[in-house]
Amino acid sequence: MSTKSFKTSLRVTWADTDAAGVVHYSNYFRFFERAEEEFYASLGFAFTDLRDSGLWLPRVEAFCQYKKPSRYNDVLEIEVSVEDLREKVFRLGFKVTNKASGDLLALGHLVIVAADKQAGKATKIPLSILEKLRPLAKQIL
Amino acid sequence: MSTKSFKTSLRVTWADTDAAGVVHYSNYFRFFERAEEEFYASLGFAFTDLRDSGLWLPRVEAFCQYKKPSRYNDVLEIEVSVEDLREKVFRLGFKVTNKASGDLLALGHLVIVAADKQAGKATKIPLSILEKLRPLAKQIL
Amino acid sequence: MSTKSFKTSLRVTWADTDAAGVVHYSNYFRFFERAEEEFYASLGFAFTDLRDSGLWLPRVEAFCQYKKPSRYNDVLEIEVSVEDLREKVFRLGFKVTNKASGDLLALGHLVIVAADKQAGKATKIPLSILEKLRPLAKQIL
Amino acid sequence: MSTKSFKTSLRVTWADTDAAGVVHYSNYFRFFERAEEEFYASLGFAFTDLRDSGLWLPRVEAFCQYKKPSRYNDVLEIEVSVEDLREKVFRLGFKVTNKASGDLLALGHLVIVAADKQAGKATKIPLSILEKLRPLAKQIL
Repeated sequence: MSTKSFKTSLRVTWADTDAAGVVHYSNYFRFFERAEEEFYASLGFAFTDLRDSGLWLPRVEAFCQYKKPSRYNDVLEIEVSVEDLREKVFRLGFKVTNKASGDLLALGHLVIVAADKQAGKATKIPLSILEKLRPLAKQIL
Repeated sequence: MSTKSFKTSLRVTWADTDAAGVVHYSNYFRFFERAEEEFYASLGFAFTDLRDSGLWLPRVEAFCQYKKPSRYNDVLEIEVSVEDLREKVFRLGFKVTNKASGDLLALGHLVIVAADKQAGKATKIPLSILEKLRPLAKQIL
Repeated sequence: MSTKSFKTSLRVTWADTDAAGVVHYSNYFRFFERAEEEFYASLGFAFTDLRDSGLWLPRVEAFCQYKKPSRYNDVLEIEVSVEDLREKVFRLGFKVTNKASGDLLALGHLVIVAADKQAGKATKIPLSILEKLRPLAKQIL
Repeated sequence: MSTKSFKTSLRVTWADTDAAGVVHYSNYFRFFERAEEEFYASLGFAFTDLRDSGLWLPRVEAFCQYKKPSRYNDVLEIEVSVEDLREKVFRLGFKVTNKASGDLLALGHLVIVAADKQAGKATKIPLSILEKLRPLAKQIL
């Protein structure tokens, strides 16, 4: 399945940590987002293009399971996969590992909906995006 | 069930928003945490007391479903409930509503484990805390 | 001068801290912003009103001196004052003290400009705001 | 002076923006910190090494002037320079430009003190660090 996913890495900064000396749990969602943005860029589209076409990609669900903590200066590898792809909604999976140790740190997902900015309603994922996500999708309905 | 929950409210600040003009989805987890801290305070204990007794409360799972967006200056009401209570782990539920309109904005939960700081392992929730959470728990195992 | 300032307080949350066990220095600017917003509210106007009239209040300068650290659960008192008021720009001062100990924690300021959203240029501070800020200003040019 | 500075770049993420559609001003301080950390790494030392030797590097002053806004997906170049170097304290300068347009976005600095973690007091900057910063310093006292 490794051919069907995208990987990126980032370094934990001091501001990501909390007084327990580890990355604050909410920041994993910010890491997901950075990985998501780089994933889109790797496919050749950006939030900005979507926005200019009057489309938002609001999240309808966010989930993360925490396996092991990460600390300042750790390099994290984030694997993004398209877990599910439907007409108006898709689900991205995220797997975070410590790049040095290979330890699994976190598993999560985001459920994202295509939304018409003006109407404020769910709409079909544009074909140009759909065609890029489809070959990567583990499940298509 | 309203007698078995805790409610608090907060005002959305400018820094909570993103370029879509709404609260960034990751910030709901920060709102959960503020509500959690005030919930503990209402029961008469604080993270600081736990920490001084060598106990952490790491999160093993975080989840949020987003129903409607919130915007700068909105007042959000957050209801905290004890959805599940076990020997070493408990689950807090969060329900976020727009205080002015009454609209449901988000539903989420955190699964929290009691962990011995030194050993880095799950441990029993201290009796002093357990006794405070038990009367509020919807489910006890 | 105490009659010419506004005071508010907030409690340090876990997410505000970093691995040094203290509030991350960048978060004081978020505290300033919360205090600023409550200051405006106390005067009877909000960012939202400004926005609806096509006005932004971008910051052109931000400064903070750190005197003593603050920690999780500390209650901070923030005093806001109008240090300087000009035609298109004003400067708010912030003084942060630990409410329990009275210790001075931080001193800072923000220089804020009134900007026309469409034109993207500095513009006169609207009279309705100016009239509310003027009685509080330590210096007027 | 370009031989005496360090440059790094980063991409603005969605979470960095606010409802004005631009990077929230407080996030420039987070950008400074990331650049600072990479600057140290380029010199061969990390916060973690310092921490293990019982040293903190608390900030005593933070400052930023904002020239032009930056937006989602912009690539920012951050130049770090050692503006001043003394026995116990040093000042890092930051210059942020939009990499594509070359526009100057922000100028700032951090005043950083070497502090003994146990004693909670300012202490001499360790020789190993001093020797790495000295060749880069614009001013030495």
